[in-house]
Amino acid sequence: MLVDLPLDQLRDYRPEVPEPDDFDDFWAATLAQARSTPTAATSEPADTPVTAPRVEDVTFPGFGGEPVRAWFVAPPVPGPLPCVVELIGYGGGRGLPHERLGWAAAGYASLVMDTRGQASTWGSGGGTPDPHGSGPAHPGVMTRGIESPQTYYYRRLVTDAVRAVDHVLTRPDVDPDRVAAVGTSQGGGLALATGALHGRVAAVVADVPFLCHLERAVSITDAAPYSEVASYLAVHRGAAEQVFRTLSYVDGVVMARRICAPTMISVALMDDVCPPSTVFAAANAIPVPPTVEVYPFNGHEGGGQEQWLRSVRWLGEVLA
Amino acid sequence: MLVDLPLDQLRDYRPEVPEPDDFDDFWAATLAQARSTPTAATSEPADTPVTAPRVEDVTFPGFGGEPVRAWFVAPPVPGPLPCVVELIGYGGGRGLPHERLGWAAAGYASLVMDTRGQASTWGSGGGTPDPHGSGPAHPGVMTRGIESPQTYYYRRLVTDAVRAVDHVLTRPDVDPDRVAAVGTSQGGGLALATGALHGRVAAVVADVPFLCHLERAVSITDAAPYSEVASYLAVHRGAAEQVFRTLSYVDGVVMARRICAPTMISVALMDDVCPPSTVFAAANAIPVPPTVEVYPFNGHEGGGQEQWLRSVRWLGEVLA
Amino acid sequence: MLVDLPLDQLRDYRPEVPEPDDFDDFWAATLAQARSTPTAATSEPADTPVTAPRVEDVTFPGFGGEPVRAWFVAPPVPGPLPCVVELIGYGGGRGLPHERLGWAAAGYASLVMDTRGQASTWGSGGGTPDPHGSGPAHPGVMTRGIESPQTYYYRRLVTDAVRAVDHVLTRPDVDPDRVAAVGTSQGGGLALATGALHGRVAAVVADVPFLCHLERAVSITDAAPYSEVASYLAVHRGAAEQVFRTLSYVDGVVMARRICAPTMISVALMDDVCPPSTVFAAANAIPVPPTVEVYPFNGHEGGGQEQWLRSVRWLGEVLA
Amino acid sequence: MLVDLPLDQLRDYRPEVPEPDDFDDFWAATLAQARSTPTAATSEPADTPVTAPRVEDVTFPGFGGEPVRAWFVAPPVPGPLPCVVELIGYGGGRGLPHERLGWAAAGYASLVMDTRGQASTWGSGGGTPDPHGSGPAHPGVMTRGIESPQTYYYRRLVTDAVRAVDHVLTRPDVDPDRVAAVGTSQGGGLALATGALHGRVAAVVADVPFLCHLERAVSITDAAPYSEVASYLAVHRGAAEQVFRTLSYVDGVVMARRICAPTMISVALMDDVCPPSTVFAAANAIPVPPTVEVYPFNGHEGGGQEQWLRSVRWLGEVLA
Amino acid sequence: MLVDLPLDQLRDYRPEVPEPDDFDDFWAATLAQARSTPTAATSEPADTPVTAPRVEDVTFPGFGGEPVRAWFVAPPVPGPLPCVVELIGYGGGRGLPHERLGWAAAGYASLVMDTRGQASTWGSGGGTPDPHGSGPAHPGVMTRGIESPQTYYYRRLVTDAVRAVDHVLTRPDVDPDRVAAVGTSQGGGLALATGALHGRVAAVVADVPFLCHLERAVSITDAAPYSEVASYLAVHRGAAEQVFRTLSYVDGVVMARRICAPTMISVALMDDVCPPSTVFAAANAIPVPPTVEVYPFNGHEGGGQEQWLRSVRWLGEVLA
Amino acid sequence: MLVDLPLDQLRDYRPEVPEPDDFDDFWAATLAQARSTPTAATSEPADTPVTAPRVEDVTFPGFGGEPVRAWFVAPPVPGPLPCVVELIGYGGGRGLPHERLGWAAAGYASLVMDTRGQASTWGSGGGTPDPHGSGPAHPGVMTRGIESPQTYYYRRLVTDAVRAVDHVLTRPDVDPDRVAAVGTSQGGGLALATGALHGRVAAVVADVPFLCHLERAVSITDAAPYSEVASYLAVHRGAAEQVFRTLSYVDGVVMARRICAPTMISVALMDDVCPPSTVFAAANAIPVPPTVEVYPFNGHEGGGQEQWLRSVRWLGEVLA
Repeated sequence: MLVDLPLDQLRDYRPEVPEPDDFDDFWAATLAQARSTPTAATSEPADTPVTAPRVEDVTFPGFGGEPVRAWFVAPPVPGPLPCVVELIGYGGGRGLPHERLGWAAAGYASLVMDTRGQASTWGSGGGTPDPHGSGPAHPGVMTRGIESPQTYYYRRLVTDAVRAVDHVLTRPDVDPDRVAAVGTSQGGGLALATGALHGRVAAVVADVPFLCHLERAVSITDAAPYSEVASYLAVHRGAAEQVFRTLSYVDGVVMARRICAPTMISVALMDDVCPPSTVFAAANAIPVPPTVEVYPFNGHEGGGQEQWLRSVRWLGEVLA
Repeated sequence: MLVDLPLDQLRDYRPEVPEPDDFDDFWAATLAQARSTPTAATSEPADTPVTAPRVEDVTFPGFGGEPVRAWFVAPPVPGPLPCVVELIGYGGGRGLPHERLGWAAAGYASLVMDTRGQASTWGSGGGTPDPHGSGPAHPGVMTRGIESPQTYYYRRLVTDAVRAVDHVLTRPDVDPDRVAAVGTSQGGGLALATGALHGRVAAVVADVPFLCHLERAVSITDAAPYSEVASYLAVHRGAAEQVFRTLSYVDGVVMARRICAPTMISVALMDDVCPPSTVFAAANAIPVPPTVEVYPFNGHEGGGQEQWLRSVRWLGEVLA
Repeated sequence: MLVDLPLDQLRDYRPEVPEPDDFDDFWAATLAQARSTPTAATSEPADTPVTAPRVEDVTFPGFGGEPVRAWFVAPPVPGPLPCVVELIGYGGGRGLPHERLGWAAAGYASLVMDTRGQASTWGSGGGTPDPHGSGPAHPGVMTRGIESPQTYYYRRLVTDAVRAVDHVLTRPDVDPDRVAAVGTSQGGGLALATGALHGRVAAVVADVPFLCHLERAVSITDAAPYSEVASYLAVHRGAAEQVFRTLSYVDGVVMARRICAPTMISVALMDDVCPPSTVFAAANAIPVPPTVEVYPFNGHEGGGQEQWLRSVRWLGEVLA
Repeated sequence: MLVDLPLDQLRDYRPEVPEPDDFDDFWAATLAQARSTPTAATSEPADTPVTAPRVEDVTFPGFGGEPVRAWFVAPPVPGPLPCVVELIGYGGGRGLPHERLGWAAAGYASLVMDTRGQASTWGSGGGTPDPHGSGPAHPGVMTRGIESPQTYYYRRLVTDAVRAVDHVLTRPDVDPDRVAAVGTSQGGGLALATGALHGRVAAVVADVPFLCHLERAVSITDAAPYSEVASYLAVHRGAAEQVFRTLSYVDGVVMARRICAPTMISVALMDDVCPPSTVFAAANAIPVPPTVEVYPFNGHEGGGQEQWLRSVRWLGEVLA
Repeated sequence: MLVDLPLDQLRDYRPEVPEPDDFDDFWAATLAQARSTPTAATSEPADTPVTAPRVEDVTFPGFGGEPVRAWFVAPPVPGPLPCVVELIGYGGGRGLPHERLGWAAAGYASLVMDTRGQASTWGSGGGTPDPHGSGPAHPGVMTRGIESPQTYYYRRLVTDAVRAVDHVLTRPDVDPDRVAAVGTSQGGGLALATGALHGRVAAVVADVPFLCHLERAVSITDAAPYSEVASYLAVHRGAAEQVFRTLSYVDGVVMARRICAPTMISVALMDDVCPPSTVFAAANAIPVPPTVEVYPFNGHEGGGQEQWLRSVRWLGEVLA
Repeated sequence: MLVDLPLDQLRDYRPEVPEPDDFDDFWAATLAQARSTPTAATSEPADTPVTAPRVEDVTFPGFGGEPVRAWFVAPPVPGPLPCVVELIGYGGGRGLPHERLGWAAAGYASLVMDTRGQASTWGSGGGTPDPHGSGPAHPGVMTRGIESPQTYYYRRLVTDAVRAVDHVLTRPDVDPDRVAAVGTSQGGGLALATGALHGRVAAVVADVPFLCHLERAVSITDAAPYSEVASYLAVHRGAAEQVFRTLSYVDGVVMARRICAPTMISVALMDDVCPPSTVFAAANAIPVPPTVEVYPFNGHEGGGQEQWLRSVRWLGEVLA
């Protein structure tokens, strides 16, 4: 059933979402630090029966220069190619090399980024550790390091995603003017963040994005992973102010204000994991109105493969 | 948690599963009738952004000559190619053309068969009707036409699968000596049936197969779709004998006794949808012992993409 | 808990519900076709230990002249008698002959109509097939044939109900001026339809009726069977317009506008299966305001046997 | 799914169930006390639209002479008639006068006994108080007064049932040699008790009976109402011995040893409310083997109306 | 997630809650009757390994002079001491003597009152019977005796709580000018009632109080124990008026209007057991605005031990 | 309901549980390293309204010398006192200073150890970080660092517990010959480990202990937190051997073989969180048979405060 405001109200939903004064400085410093590490990316052929698109097993330097795994998949044609950087949903990882062949089949190179410290809840796993401890935390990553923006888990993961774009920009087989950030759920939140924080991202596709309008999200749904924050605050009863301050540094609404690239956002009206008002709050905050695809009868699966089709067609125009 | 017998007992689990005297005649007549219809398959280019493997939108004659949709996906190389006929799980359909690119990426042609009258519960749908009515039935297809083997839904769906093999055998781009039937869950049950009923199937891969040892399955799990039969019998209290007689014509254990091709079966020990004893009952009934892949900590998702990897490698040897 | 609008808003709830231009033509043609089949009803004594009301096992021609089973139950008194045509809830059938003795005990003849293709989810079953196939469909009957009004399941079931009235009008033991259509849930939706489409229905009792204001119903509840439509649309993402067009031909609100007979409707404010706003939308669309019985603390069981009492008393006045 | 031992083991299941030494004295004294109260039964016409079977609103003296409500329903024929005393399931009451017309329709008088202090969880209620307090108790009646056999709730309810038989024996319209005790679930447990404690009961029908083999029942199911006892013992950790001693005075297995009348018992193999081993324990304890009807695919709904049919036919032979 | 109105609306939520004309007379008579019984309280050393605070096992006369158990716990210092009378949540009892040592550790005497007839759902039990029968009732105490204010369960329990205050006022080790009534959930409802009905209560602490704004509570939540009333009314369909009249005699909103002592109330915005609007309705009805502690991310556990801390500090000021 | 083997089989349940060859070396090295850090414990008065037992806010060096928080609570009497080191259940922390006053009230000093990185799921929190990253992990701590015994989370937590004992042994107010390790669930598992690894522990009380017979536990229950391991293995399909090798270093059965101190273990037969066979496997592995308290009708709440009573009495004898 519908889980949020009626669609006509959603289309105009523009809540006040505060942002910290030092938001831009925070990210500039974080990214500068990450980019200052001397580590180089490495690549080797993937161990896979896939022969037709070529698949490389890539390790690139992410947050703090720490190694992040990825698959680079590209059609067997001379480049440079348009390229998508694909970010993954909560609990998942880069999986196995053959799992995401659609982009190559449609003529794109793609870099599928692993998710540090996750990759153990669904799918086929991944291999990227998150070598950082945490204060007291609720199970899951939503409250790991939430005691400050500096220590927060998503500071690291967002940085990884920005650095993934950095990586593809260095590749001779990628056309640096046609790089898109794409993802679903957590991956959609990361795509928005990457679009906000990396000036070379030429297009953003965020499907049923997570991490948007976090204070509202935590209040209006019982579904994980937003519920992790409410559970944490149910125990740490005085911590709300600090927690929401930390979260504001990764909030998709705050990110959205900084997105200049063309953006497509999809939203599902029966999605209680990433409720539609939180998604519209981000969509409506992007200075240039994004393309919004609405799926009225879907939950968090959203538009699924139908939405992938629409995004391919849209990217075909945007990156032409 | 483990949902069935301990693994050491499963490995030797060989229950008595009765089969009807006219089983072979029934299927011979059914297939002969289907093959006697004059309808020809048709094919046109699929509407898809996929360019690299070529995708055809196929309609072939299934049960009673009725049209069945399928995608034919093949790598852009000269054939004839080894080919898998892929059957789909309960509630799903052939979906969109780009969804199953792995086989082509690994060098195989594949025909992804739509599922008549289903294709509306998960995934991206399908377009094959089931133009047959039914007696009183529980929601779902498990009891549609269950009043007799002649009218039973799965008589039609199994015939579709056999006819799908017939279709690929006619194609010049397919090597008729290297055709495999593969599928997961309902698709695994259909793969076993196809291996039993079609002499040209050179290999069978049945992952967490459905439709096996049906009388036990109906008794030991509350999970759908087996529960549809128990629900039907809870209302039609005197119908058990007739119902299980009908089911015996499609039981994977009975089918298994007739499989001559090399077979790989995967099974998950925490799978309450297709409980492991029903799967082992089928595996242990195949005259030549099949390769059995056991996933001790998985539910009905089974081996997932890891199992696909193993099946590709196994097929590479079997169809070499 | 209350699942919908507050009662004071419900009492005035009159949403715009579109109706197709050819609604009346559609039904006129459908019923004319059904009535043009030459099949006659048959009747024999029921196999039952019931001796006091007499029970006949009736088969009458329904949609397309197809056979529909029913029990005719009447007190052992000389007629002609007032008669109720009783329609059954989703998943049920006519059951066993002794199950519905109340009407006879209160002095009414009754015809309990079986439900084609259902009768396998609760109760004691039934024996009426639905000899029509379907396009891709979600389990259950809500989306069977939903691709067009012509092929939709409920076109057939509504026609059966109208033909059930036709049948009792031909019986010498029934007073043709005192025939009521009654039912609960799906049976209530059918009672409304029968009241709209059959000019000889002298009274309608629709308890917690299903099939009303379908577009809203599909959006505001997760409960089956309305959820079947949402599930179908979650897979068939582009089909909403066609689906709701089909549904508009059986929508209880559209039917209600055509009801001339006195009508009693009951509604339960904690009913998430047939949410109260959908019921009030129908009630408030009947030109002559119906009697509305409100049960504030009940779910879909509604008024139960208490409501049966009220309906008997109300019918006693209306059909006097 | 099957919830208990396999059927072949159930057929021979004869556990040791201890009985208190003073069991017979306890009940003799209890019944003597109840019968010594001078209260007389009263009767008046029921307020109901039912005209054909006559319905009386009866109040008879139960435990301690306290008033117990009942409906007496009889076909409008000259008696004396065979009569069933019908006991009701947990949480229910005698409901409305028109709810149970089957027995009269089949030629039997029936007395539908209300359930003291219950009648507020399902159905149409009832009007019999239970004017006795209790020690600390878990919600529900299973632990009310469980601190001793004297104060236990079911001492009172069983006595009511025995006194209901006493009442019908006094009626001129009832044939005192053809009185049966019947019931489902709690009503089935009461039927067994009545058959054990009242010498004039000529037949017993206990469908999916409750209150059997209580120590096992409490251990093997989480379903209410047996779970009430486990919940109580989870708080009153030292009380198990006393609790099970109290329960032994009403245990259907102990009662069964004392049943001389022909008995029919029905059992459902997927019934987790009254698990089949507890029912077979009682059935196998009756000195003359009862007729046992097994429903392999039903839960606690058991044989439902089908079982009613079987019981009518069986009673027709037994009481002929 | 948030389960009720937004916080800003809650702060001003002042619904009309009717009160019976004879409310004050009813309670005056009830208390006078209770106080007129000649029974005296008794006390003996508790059987416990606790040595440091002294613990007495107290039995005092409650409703109708009936014995009510309690623990009296006090620090080993010369009195007279400030004292809290602690009332317990639904389903619980006084438990074991060592369970509630916080008050003594903070310098308070405390009397932990047992809950008549409950004490069997969680915790360590209790030993106070409720020697009163009931009309038909739903499991639990919410509908026991609900047919009239005279027979209602909570008339007795509220009287017990008032009499508990009477008891501590007689003790030489208690300072009669520094007695507070405190409790959580049901205990919070009792604390409000005690504050309203006993003139010597010097402070009230009601945490997530139950029994407030009962007509709304029954309508807006499905959670037990409020759901017991809705379940009862779903069966007793005509009883709503009488039921809510009875409930009005114990409604915390009506009580609140009569509270003169300083009061602290805590409320949790995700509490579906005692929804926040029902709590604010009571808080906002107290003539002198109480201290309200809001826990935005908690369910019915509310502020837990953090709230205990705040209440100790607040009491320290109020009772100074 | 009973969730595991029958009690008579449990009493003799002694499965083979393999232990790594270097188990003792591993722990010797780990503890030596921890003890070699020069950090000293600190203590200050706790911020609490508790006056009677004195409460200190302690920080002691745990694994790797990292700071671990604790409350030290002691009766206001001259020591040295017997002392319990209390370990906390999964998801909890040391909470607030006033929460655990029972030990002091009974004459014991106690040190309530915080749980590194947890303390955010229930209760009142805690303040001890876990400053160590992790490989890919499932939400929760069960699979954090599970890739090797060196990096595994529980290596650190067990070491903290051993170091907590080290700390109390240094205190002048504690009698070093009368120190017990106690805890429930995870705390029980830690108590067993502490008893095995620290030679000065004079008594162990492990209530419904976690972390025992881990390979079986992961297979026989779906309940968290054991399910975290199964979920991890469902994704990391090839990791079982390494995972169970890591777990064997903290398995309570392996620990139990090394316990020399008198031990009390409690177990609940309806506990699906820590199934009774896993608890008996540990209990039966202790060389000197422990005192085993069985709670037949409890789930994971086990004996609760009743068990605390028994443990106090038992400790009174053992530490006399």
